[in-house]
Amino acid sequence: MKRILLIIQFLGTRYSGWQVQPGQVTVQGEIERAIYETTGERVKIHSSGRTDAGVHAMAMPAHFDTDTRIQPENIYKALNTHLPDDIRVLSSCQVDEHFHARFDVKEKTYEYHFYVSPQPLPYFSTTEAWITPPFNFDLAKSILNEFLGTHDFVGFASARTEVTSTIRTIKKISLSKTSKDHFVLSVTGDGFLYNMVRIIAGTIISVGNGKIAPNEIKSIVESKDRKRAGDTASAVGLVLKNVKY
Amino acid sequence: MKRILLIIQFLGTRYSGWQVQPGQVTVQGEIERAIYETTGERVKIHSSGRTDAGVHAMAMPAHFDTDTRIQPENIYKALNTHLPDDIRVLSSCQVDEHFHARFDVKEKTYEYHFYVSPQPLPYFSTTEAWITPPFNFDLAKSILNEFLGTHDFVGFASARTEVTSTIRTIKKISLSKTSKDHFVLSVTGDGFLYNMVRIIAGTIISVGNGKIAPNEIKSIVESKDRKRAGDTASAVGLVLKNVKY
Repeated sequence: MKRILLIIQFLGTRYSGWQVQPGQVTVQGEIERAIYETTGERVKIHSSGRTDAGVHAMAMPAHFDTDTRIQPENIYKALNTHLPDDIRVLSSCQVDEHFHARFDVKEKTYEYHFYVSPQPLPYFSTTEAWITPPFNFDLAKSILNEFLGTHDFVGFASARTEVTSTIRTIKKISLSKTSKDHFVLSVTGDGFLYNMVRIIAGTIISVGNGKIAPNEIKSIVESKDRKRAGDTASAVGLVLKNVKY
Repeated sequence: MKRILLIIQFLGTRYSGWQVQPGQVTVQGEIERAIYETTGERVKIHSSGRTDAGVHAMAMPAHFDTDTRIQPENIYKALNTHLPDDIRVLSSCQVDEHFHARFDVKEKTYEYHFYVSPQPLPYFSTTEAWITPPFNFDLAKSILNEFLGTHDFVGFASARTEVTSTIRTIKKISLSKTSKDHFVLSVTGDGFLYNMVRIIAGTIISVGNGKIAPNEIKSIVESKDRKRAGDTASAVGLVLKNVKY
């Protein structure tokens, strides 16, 4: 028995998220099917976390156990021949039998991509969320530091969150203008609650378009009140950038 | 009767190109249907040019004639309610009855987006073409000037080209690195032959990956021989950026 770590990129558009659900097409389901078609083994694959419907991943780590005789470094090539074009395994390697793609995560980085326009722009619609003007970039940037460090982020989690502790540490956060009216928020943390990045993005966008005053952010974070934070920003702009162990 | 100019953005992924063809879903077909559903009029819409299957447009101009009482500046809003999400009319206005979206074109700019990777990357697959390494950016950049100016570009056109003259003027051409392994070729000209931008892109990519020597380009352009130029680069990377009148 060997434990194999895969690094997977996918465009989430067509999928009901990562996790297998009855009657839904999911990324996990597609990969488990590809493993079965490659090795003949019915296995469960464990990713660094679940992503919602429509969310993308640049490099999602996931492990599974196998007795296949295919060389670990070649498994990804075999899997890709059984996967649709919008899911690609970028690499595969053998890892220690005690390694766990979810429990051993040290750090995750998500990006949230959005553009500001009076109306939706189809060319960007696959990976960027649409935001209506006005959007004051400097104002939005000015509040980023309020999220840095260790906080109880329960006010930035959807009710569906199922964890014992809602305390998380945000190590890095930045907002960049990639071109006129196009922006990327990057957030690195030790982990994220359910919908946490999308609610942080929604809150920062609300500051940028004047719906939340910058000086309110500190008290919104401290309030632990979901109702005071911004809306959950749409899934299309979110991408899991990388995961460190 | 009023002549209306529309500016249209579309993601070409789902379409068999711009032009109406029997049994195919086309951008022109969708817009003519939306005009019919909005005004009750069966009209033909004239764009600045045809785009192939899979090619995108940031701002495609197109005109049509109508007797509708809807204000010219509001027509685009009405049309959008009858269009799928991957086609948006960005604006509408009345133009002179002699204006023609195709015959009056002074200048067009196309961009060709591509990335270099050992394997295809789903996250970028909607609007960027996949190129395998190696890709020497400086080498590719070094030959751009050979395309500038007025040439007979018949060697850079597909056989299907149906024009009286194959002489075109390229006014501007540039190649930029937008991020690590991601590139954009931008070409501005007075007009382009069938597949001309994609064949120029394919030729520049062939120089970048060492299949065509930089010092051959001048003679390839002069040869007017389609067989000597590079392959036609895939449609997915091509986008009509703007058109000037």
